[in-house]
Amino acid sequence: MEQRVVRAAIINVTGYVGAELARLLAQHPAVEIACVTGRSEVGKRLPEVFPHLWSVDLPIVADVDQGVDVIFSALPHAAAAERLAPYVEQGMPVIDASADFRLYDEETYERWYGEHPTPELLAASVYGLPELHRDAITESRLVGVPGCYPTSAILALAPLAAQGWLDGRTVVDAKSGVSGAGRALKLTSHFSEVDSNFSAYGLSGHRHHPEMVQELSALQHASDGDAQLGVTFVPHLVPMTRGILATCYPSLRDGALSGSAEERIEALRELYRSWYADAPFVHVSDSPPSTKQTLGANTCIVYPTVDPLSGEVTVISAIDNLVKGAAGGAVQCFNLMFGIPEEVGLSKIGVYP
Amino acid sequence: MEQRVVRAAIINVTGYVGAELARLLAQHPAVEIACVTGRSEVGKRLPEVFPHLWSVDLPIVADVDQGVDVIFSALPHAAAAERLAPYVEQGMPVIDASADFRLYDEETYERWYGEHPTPELLAASVYGLPELHRDAITESRLVGVPGCYPTSAILALAPLAAQGWLDGRTVVDAKSGVSGAGRALKLTSHFSEVDSNFSAYGLSGHRHHPEMVQELSALQHASDGDAQLGVTFVPHLVPMTRGILATCYPSLRDGALSGSAEERIEALRELYRSWYADAPFVHVSDSPPSTKQTLGANTCIVYPTVDPLSGEVTVISAIDNLVKGAAGGAVQCFNLMFGIPEEVGLSKIGVYP
Amino acid sequence: MEQRVVRAAIINVTGYVGAELARLLAQHPAVEIACVTGRSEVGKRLPEVFPHLWSVDLPIVADVDQGVDVIFSALPHAAAAERLAPYVEQGMPVIDASADFRLYDEETYERWYGEHPTPELLAASVYGLPELHRDAITESRLVGVPGCYPTSAILALAPLAAQGWLDGRTVVDAKSGVSGAGRALKLTSHFSEVDSNFSAYGLSGHRHHPEMVQELSALQHASDGDAQLGVTFVPHLVPMTRGILATCYPSLRDGALSGSAEERIEALRELYRSWYADAPFVHVSDSPPSTKQTLGANTCIVYPTVDPLSGEVTVISAIDNLVKGAAGGAVQCFNLMFGIPEEVGLSKIGVYP
Amino acid sequence: MEQRVVRAAIINVTGYVGAELARLLAQHPAVEIACVTGRSEVGKRLPEVFPHLWSVDLPIVADVDQGVDVIFSALPHAAAAERLAPYVEQGMPVIDASADFRLYDEETYERWYGEHPTPELLAASVYGLPELHRDAITESRLVGVPGCYPTSAILALAPLAAQGWLDGRTVVDAKSGVSGAGRALKLTSHFSEVDSNFSAYGLSGHRHHPEMVQELSALQHASDGDAQLGVTFVPHLVPMTRGILATCYPSLRDGALSGSAEERIEALRELYRSWYADAPFVHVSDSPPSTKQTLGANTCIVYPTVDPLSGEVTVISAIDNLVKGAAGGAVQCFNLMFGIPEEVGLSKIGVYP
Repeated sequence: MEQRVVRAAIINVTGYVGAELARLLAQHPAVEIACVTGRSEVGKRLPEVFPHLWSVDLPIVADVDQGVDVIFSALPHAAAAERLAPYVEQGMPVIDASADFRLYDEETYERWYGEHPTPELLAASVYGLPELHRDAITESRLVGVPGCYPTSAILALAPLAAQGWLDGRTVVDAKSGVSGAGRALKLTSHFSEVDSNFSAYGLSGHRHHPEMVQELSALQHASDGDAQLGVTFVPHLVPMTRGILATCYPSLRDGALSGSAEERIEALRELYRSWYADAPFVHVSDSPPSTKQTLGANTCIVYPTVDPLSGEVTVISAIDNLVKGAAGGAVQCFNLMFGIPEEVGLSKIGVYP
Repeated sequence: MEQRVVRAAIINVTGYVGAELARLLAQHPAVEIACVTGRSEVGKRLPEVFPHLWSVDLPIVADVDQGVDVIFSALPHAAAAERLAPYVEQGMPVIDASADFRLYDEETYERWYGEHPTPELLAASVYGLPELHRDAITESRLVGVPGCYPTSAILALAPLAAQGWLDGRTVVDAKSGVSGAGRALKLTSHFSEVDSNFSAYGLSGHRHHPEMVQELSALQHASDGDAQLGVTFVPHLVPMTRGILATCYPSLRDGALSGSAEERIEALRELYRSWYADAPFVHVSDSPPSTKQTLGANTCIVYPTVDPLSGEVTVISAIDNLVKGAAGGAVQCFNLMFGIPEEVGLSKIGVYP
Repeated sequence: MEQRVVRAAIINVTGYVGAELARLLAQHPAVEIACVTGRSEVGKRLPEVFPHLWSVDLPIVADVDQGVDVIFSALPHAAAAERLAPYVEQGMPVIDASADFRLYDEETYERWYGEHPTPELLAASVYGLPELHRDAITESRLVGVPGCYPTSAILALAPLAAQGWLDGRTVVDAKSGVSGAGRALKLTSHFSEVDSNFSAYGLSGHRHHPEMVQELSALQHASDGDAQLGVTFVPHLVPMTRGILATCYPSLRDGALSGSAEERIEALRELYRSWYADAPFVHVSDSPPSTKQTLGANTCIVYPTVDPLSGEVTVISAIDNLVKGAAGGAVQCFNLMFGIPEEVGLSKIGVYP
Repeated sequence: MEQRVVRAAIINVTGYVGAELARLLAQHPAVEIACVTGRSEVGKRLPEVFPHLWSVDLPIVADVDQGVDVIFSALPHAAAAERLAPYVEQGMPVIDASADFRLYDEETYERWYGEHPTPELLAASVYGLPELHRDAITESRLVGVPGCYPTSAILALAPLAAQGWLDGRTVVDAKSGVSGAGRALKLTSHFSEVDSNFSAYGLSGHRHHPEMVQELSALQHASDGDAQLGVTFVPHLVPMTRGILATCYPSLRDGALSGSAEERIEALRELYRSWYADAPFVHVSDSPPSTKQTLGANTCIVYPTVDPLSGEVTVISAIDNLVKGAAGGAVQCFNLMFGIPEEVGLSKIGVYP
C-alpha cells in the first residue's frame, strides 16, 4: 500500500485540459507535478496564467524535465503525436488527450484530421476508456484519452452494443458546455454570442463521429457480426461552461427487449447496472441526470429508459467534459497504468449547485 | 388604411405569457389595452407586478370590462375554457394561449389534461398556427394558440409531412429556455438548480406530444393516407430564459429525395422556401440557427439539411417560446382575425446579442 | 406631422453598436437605412454577418453612399473622428458613438485616448445626453453619444449635482454585461472565462471616468462654484450580455437633505421626479431596478434612496448598455436633431423575462 | 499522525449549506458522516434529494444518532439555537452555520432576528472565522460560522481595521451568486427572474451588517479606541449560482499610508501579506480576483489597491459563498477544534473554468 510519489509532467498546460490536469494532479495524493510546459507562456508562473492555481506555483517551461515518470499531454492533434513519439519510443508512460491515439485505423484518422505524424505508433496505443478497456489500459504505456462527446455517447450505448442490439440508425443528440471548444479565441466562444443562446453545429460531420463508430462497432461485432450500425451525431452548444448531456435514440434489433413498458425499463436498467457493476465512476440512475450533478467530478451518470408512447429506447448520459471527458479520464487511466486504485485523486461528487 | 383602435382585454396578465401579451399589445399601433385581469394581484397596478411595464400603468382588475373587442387569455388549461365559454357564446373574438382549444379530439384532450370543461366548443376552434391555417384563423372567432414546442416542431416538419414523406419514427429532440415552465415557483425553475445545468425531462410523455401528432398527421394524411407517423419527443431544459431549438430527425419514405447530398440539400431547401413563401415570420436559413437570433421577435428560423455521413435528413428550428411560441403567435392570429396586416405590431428582428 | 423618410448610413455596422443601430433604425418608422459599411466584411450581406438581421438584407459596402441624410458611426475612437471629419465639414448631421466627441477638453481626451485627430471639431460637438442637453442636441449637427457607464452614472447623479450637493468622494460601483466590451475577441470576453464569474476591472483608471467628471462638474459648478467633486469609479463584469447597473454612493454637502429617513427619501424622490419630469425614457422608481427590466429598451430606471443605518444617500440606475447606453441614445438624439418626436422608434418596455 | 475517524452528524442536510457539508465531509479523510437529518425528507435516501450525492447513500433521518462526535447544523436561525442547545449543554462540539451564535450582543441579535431562544449560550460561542479567532476556535466547543457576506467583507478589511485605520464611512458593495438565498422557493430566486439580470437588494438594511460591524469594530478598537466606524453595505444579486465578490471602499485615517501611489500600493499589499501569512486559505493577490477562481474551494482571494486618480484605497475579495462562506468555513473550524491540520479535506483550487 506504500505508494511512492509519481513525478508527472503536463505538456501544454495552458489550455483548459492542461489546467484541469494541473488541478487534479496537484490534489492527487500519489503524484507530484514535476513540470508543466506551454510554449506561449514560457517564463511565467502557472498562477499568472491561471490564478485559480495560485497554490500550484510552478514555472512554465519549454521542455519536459529529466526524471519524470509519466507524461500527460494536452497538445492538439498532430502536434501531440509528433512531440510524444520520442517518449513513447523510450518506453515512457504517455497519456495523450488529443485525437492522435484514439483511432486505430490510419485511414480513418487521415479522413478527419489529415496525415498522421506517427502512424507506426497506432498499434501500440489503447483507447483510454477504462469501462471498455480496463485490462488493456493497465498493461499499456500509451493511452489515447477519448474525446468528450464519445465518452458520453459510448458509455450510454455500450451495454446495448455489447448485446448486439444496435441495428439501423442511432441518433446521438449531444449538448456540450462551451469549454469543450477550448481556450482559443473564436467568435463561437465569445460570451455575447453564446450566452442565453442555444444552437447546433457540426452538421456536416464532426470529428468525434468515427470514435463512436469504432468503439460501438467493436462491441457490436463481437456479439453480432452482421449488425449494421449507423450513427447520426449532432452536437449542440449550451450556454454553460462545463458538462455534456447526450440523448441517444438507438434503433434496437427486433426482439431485443420484450414485455410491458415497465418490464422492459427494468430489464434495461438491470442490463446497465450489471454491465457497469465494476465501473466505480459510472452511475446507472433511475431518474434523468443533469450535467451539473457531475461538475468537477469524474462521474458519468447513465439513464436508460423506454418511451411509453412509442415503445422506443432512449438513453441519456451526463459527464463533465473536462473531467470524465478529458483530464479525469486521463487520471483514471494513469491510476490503472501505475497500479494505483482506480478512484484515487478523483471525486465522484459534483460541485452542486 | 384607417384602422380603428381595437380594445383588447388580457385575462391572467400575471404570468409570463400574460406579461408578454401586455408588452406586445402596448406597442401594437392598432390596439388599446382596455383591461388586464389577474386574480391574485387584483388591486395592484401592472408595473408593481412587472416593473418593466412601468409605462403601461393599468390597474389589475378581477373581471373583463364591458366594451372590449377581443379577449386574449393566458389562463392555464381547464380554467381557460371555463372562463372563456361565455365570451365565445356571445360571439366575442377569443384568442386562448392554453391547451384547451388546440386538440380537436376530446378523448385525446382528456387523456393528457383530464376532462374538458366545454367539449362542445372544440368544433368551433381553430389551431392558431397561421402558417398552416391562415384562412381558417381569419374566419375564426376562437383560436387555440399552439404550444411552444409544437410550434417549433410542426414548423420544422410541416413541409415534409405535406409531401407525405414522413414514415416511421421521427425524433424531436427539443431544447427550451426556462420561461417555458412559467412564473409559478418550482424547484425545477429555481435558479441554482437550473443555472449552468442541462437536463432532459418529460421522458414518460409530454403534453405537447399530441399536438404535434395531430397537426403533422393531418398534413401527412392529406397527402398520403397510409403513412405511419411515430413521434418520439424529448424536451430538454437549457440554462437560459427564452428560446426553443428543436432538432428533428425524421425518417423519410424511400425515394423522398434523390441525387447527391448537395442536390438533396438544395431540393430540401427549395421545398421549404416554397412552402413558406407567404409566411412572413418563417425564415428558411442556409445556416444552423440559434435561439437568440429570435429573442423578442416573432420569427421562426428553419434549417433543413442532410447529414453527409448517414444521408439522413435533419431539420432544426428556432423560436422565442414566449413570442412565436405564445404571445406573438397570438397577436399574429389576432391580426388575421381583425383584418390587420399580419406583421403589424410584431418584430422580425431578435434582440441580439 | 407628415414625416418624410430620412435616409441613414451606418458606418461600421459589424460591431455590436453597429448591429444595434441596424436593429433600431430598421424598425424606425421615419428612417430608411440607405447603406451600411464595415471594412472587414465588405461584399457580404448584412444577414450573413448577423443572422438576426435576416429581414434587413443590405449589402455591406466600403463607403457611405451619396444621398444620405444622416450618418451614424460605430467606429472606434480616433478612427471615428478621422472618418467623420469630412462629413462634419460638409454640414452633414453626424451622430458618433465613439469617445471622439464626448470630451470638450482636448488635453483630457489626449490623456485617456491619445492625440485627437480633429481637435478643431470638439467645439462644434454636443454631449449626446438629451436629459442634460436637449436643446443643444436639437440645434446640433455633431453629437458625441455618451459612453455606457457615464450614461448610467450621470443620470443617477445629475439631480444631486444640479443642486450643488455633491461634495467629497462619490463612489460609482458599476456593473456591466459583457457586450460592453464589444465583438472583438479577447480572453476577458471568452465565454468560459466570464460565465458564472464576477470580477472588477479597470482599477488603474477607466476611460469613462473623465466623462462623468466633465458632466457632473458642469452641473455642480453651475450651482455651486466651489464644490469639490471626486469620483471613484470601479467597473465590474457581470456574466450576462446586456445591462448596466450603477450603484452610486455620493457624499452630500452638509444640510443637503433634512428630516427623518422617510422624509429625506421622499424629498429625494420628489427632486428626481421633478428633475426628470420631461425625460420620457427616465423612470424614477420606488423600488430597486434590475437591468433586465430595460433589456432592448431605451429606458433608464433611477432609484434614489437613503440607507436607514448610516443615513447616507445611495442612488441606483439601470440601463441596457447597447440601447440607452449606445445605439438607443443615438437614435434619441437623431429624433431631436430631425424634429421627430423624441420617443419614435424606441421602446420603453424591456424584453422581460 | 494516526487520526481516528470522527463521526459527524449534519442537521438539516436538505438545504444548500447542508448539501455542501455532505459533499465536503464525505470526502474528508478523517470524517465519517454518521447521520444526516432533514425533517421534510425523512425516509428518503440522500441521493434521492441530491442526485450529485449518489455515492453518499445515507438515509435521511429525523434525529441525530447516538454516538456522534460532532454536530454540524445547517438549520435556519432561531431553529438552530433551539435544536442545538441540549447538545451544547452536554458538551458536544457544535458548529452552527446559522446566525444564532455569531453576534455576541443579545440586543443586536434581537434587533435583526427577533428574540434569541438561548441567550445564555452566546457567551460560550466563538465567531468562526479562523483568520481572526484561530486560538479561540481551537479551544471552543460552540462555533457560529460567519455569514457569507461578512466573511468576504471582514477578510477584505481586517488588516486595515487591525491597524486602526478605518475612519468614517466604509462602503461594502457586495455581489453574490443566487445560492446565497438558499434552496427555498421564492420569486427572487426564480430562474427567469434572475438570469441575465443584475440588481441590488437589502437597501433598507441587511442582517449581515451587524456582523461586519462587530468584528471590524473589535479589531479597530483594539488598536484605536476612539475611531469611528460606519459601514454602508449594499448586497447585489449576480446571475450565477456561487461566489461573492466584495468591493470595499474604506475611508482611511489621515496619514494611514504615505508615499507615491506605487509605494502605497506596495505598503498595502505588504501589510496584507504579512497579516495573512499564517492563513492557508487567504491568498493576497496582485491582480483583481474573480469569483470563479474560488469555485468549490475554501479560498478567499484578497486584492488591496489604491485608485491612482483619487488616491483612495479599494479592497476586493472573492470567495465561494457555500464553501469559505459557509460549509468550508465550518469544516476549517472543525479541523481546528479536533486538532486536525487546518487544510485537511478542503481544496484551495477552484474548479475553473
